[in-house]
Amino acid sequence: MEHGAPLTSWLDVDPASDFSLANLPFGIISTPASPAPHVGVAVGNYVVDMKELSCHPEFHHVFDFVQEHSEVFSKPTLNAFYLRFLLRKDDSWIARVIVPAKSVRLHLPMDIGDYTDFYAGYHHAFHVGCMFRGPKAALQPNYTHLPVGYHGRASSVVVSGTPIKRPRGQILTQPPAEGQPSQPITSPCRRLDFELEFGCLIAKPNEMGSEISVHDAEDYIFGYVLLNDWSARDIQTWEYVPLGPFNSKNFGTTISPWVVLADALEPFRTRALENKTEVQDYLKGAEKPVFDINLEVELKSDLLGSGTISGPEEHQRGSLLEMSEGGKKDVVVGSNGAVRRFLEDGDTVVMKGFAGGSNGRVGFGECTGKVAGATVAPSAA
Amino acid sequence: MEHGAPLTSWLDVDPASDFSLANLPFGIISTPASPAPHVGVAVGNYVVDMKELSCHPEFHHVFDFVQEHSEVFSKPTLNAFYLRFLLRKDDSWIARVIVPAKSVRLHLPMDIGDYTDFYAGYHHAFHVGCMFRGPKAALQPNYTHLPVGYHGRASSVVVSGTPIKRPRGQILTQPPAEGQPSQPITSPCRRLDFELEFGCLIAKPNEMGSEISVHDAEDYIFGYVLLNDWSARDIQTWEYVPLGPFNSKNFGTTISPWVVLADALEPFRTRALENKTEVQDYLKGAEKPVFDINLEVELKSDLLGSGTISGPEEHQRGSLLEMSEGGKKDVVVGSNGAVRRFLEDGDTVVMKGFAGGSNGRVGFGECTGKVAGATVAPSAA
Repeated sequence: MEHGAPLTSWLDVDPASDFSLANLPFGIISTPASPAPHVGVAVGNYVVDMKELSCHPEFHHVFDFVQEHSEVFSKPTLNAFYLRFLLRKDDSWIARVIVPAKSVRLHLPMDIGDYTDFYAGYHHAFHVGCMFRGPKAALQPNYTHLPVGYHGRASSVVVSGTPIKRPRGQILTQPPAEGQPSQPITSPCRRLDFELEFGCLIAKPNEMGSEISVHDAEDYIFGYVLLNDWSARDIQTWEYVPLGPFNSKNFGTTISPWVVLADALEPFRTRALENKTEVQDYLKGAEKPVFDINLEVELKSDLLGSGTISGPEEHQRGSLLEMSEGGKKDVVVGSNGAVRRFLEDGDTVVMKGFAGGSNGRVGFGECTGKVAGATVAPSAA
Repeated sequence: MEHGAPLTSWLDVDPASDFSLANLPFGIISTPASPAPHVGVAVGNYVVDMKELSCHPEFHHVFDFVQEHSEVFSKPTLNAFYLRFLLRKDDSWIARVIVPAKSVRLHLPMDIGDYTDFYAGYHHAFHVGCMFRGPKAALQPNYTHLPVGYHGRASSVVVSGTPIKRPRGQILTQPPAEGQPSQPITSPCRRLDFELEFGCLIAKPNEMGSEISVHDAEDYIFGYVLLNDWSARDIQTWEYVPLGPFNSKNFGTTISPWVVLADALEPFRTRALENKTEVQDYLKGAEKPVFDINLEVELKSDLLGSGTISGPEEHQRGSLLEMSEGGKKDVVVGSNGAVRRFLEDGDTVVMKGFAGGSNGRVGFGECTGKVAGATVAPSAA
């Protein structure tokens, strides 16, 4: 989708960059000069240091600006609008608080108070269900009626670039013999996987026990990130009945560092998948257009070079579990012919996503993580 | 169990009180004079205001005391030991920082970063399993091999006394007709239950991806509280496959306000239930003696008077689901003959627990919550 002429600036910002002037995502940065984590805004290959900006003597003009525009814009929108204004002015003093993106360290963009993971990807749920139960019973009876989800571990949500250690845990290596009980072993995960997901950061408080209408739900979303829900498939298979995934998921969850604000994605609304089930009244209206975002996963193997994973139906290929049909067939992941069924130590998973085109792309940057080897097993007690 | 002569003090503390001198649990309090939440220690019907204590001119003596004893005691133990010392001295200045328990407001004793709920109660798991699958298949194959658990919602863990609103959600009122899909309705929960649990507060950090040996695990536990894992059984039945309980549990979890430190419970170790399954090496040694604690649940119905729930095998009666055999039979909960299968609006659930006897009881105080009516359904969109 193209939306008019690209925005321009005295700063050299490529409209085809993830962080074009149409985006201006929010992140938490630190710099050698200012080592305590603080707010930054990405623009092209640069970052506006918002702490330095607020300390600048010219900053009082912001208040004039806010007074002029306060009725029109929500706060984060206003920040972006104000920055765009400064980035268009020829005589802008803002240049002094802009640093190259390479010079900043990126942190988790928010304290994560709770982390909820939904099973919202219809094609993913259907494809995985088919593998285990066949197409007729692929989806559980509740699937089309409610958003199936579970709570994850908030304290192991980490920012892009943090290494992810392969977990050790209990796995079954074979089904139990007829009439015999299952006998697990303890092992480093042998079926380590990624899951490409879209993360929503909720920042508006609500009172416990109060209900939020689906019509108001989007007001609670501060912005969006890419998310890698790393999964230990073999640990998951053994542990997840009846209380759901636990150690198979909570060893690490990676999110991209730049929070793309809802307003930046607004021009890229598209029709959601149709749900043929008539949902309950309280969920009606939730079919509001979703965002049209191009997503890709790249697997970089340190030994074997790199290659981009892509397929004719990209939304069906969000995990190796699906691509390898449950670990039964090789998936070519490298331009040199490298193959995988599950992740190997040293593999780096890079997720990318963007909306829009060369006239003002709104992108997420990268959500990356490198797989580190499991802890060597301590000797038995 | 009785352990020698009771500790004595110039302060009037009943050795049969939950908060005898053998206990001295930690909590977060505020008072009209000092409204910002801060640390207090419960003793009998009083609270030592630790902030006032630390501001007192005599407080520098603490440092002499710490230097004398620092090699012997861990920090929380030292606090308790020091308080016991002050509470035995005839000329103690500490009287000026002691306030009646009734005059303080109690807060959550810690910020809850993550909340994990285990299915560790063997009799509970077995009894519930029998109700749904019969005794042969009552326990899932993994149950005796690993601690089955799931993540709960940290932000809805609340301190004793906070009202719990009955949740609304999707429930099935009847099984689907042969060959027909299930059809849920939206309703206030009709099978609201409590679950009596023992809560461990973890306060020692560990690095993500590092493993903690079972032999070191107790070092990470700061202390213990009672916990009511409120449960909406009908919402749970419909939603929990395949990712576990979600909205059926996350509407509220109540904990008692006073954290009983591990040292206070040390004299009350007892043998754990035997696990006939040979566990994996990394779990061996986890059979360390557990604590012998007397637990009770009392259900106060505002309309019908009150009564204490008790049974010949109390550990099997931690929820109404079990007591009413899945909601099939009435449970007498009031001395006046009041009956319940599940909780009604206005019911107050009071959980209590203690170890030891009249020579120095170590108790948890109360973990209470009153059921408030569900939000009235908004009209359809």
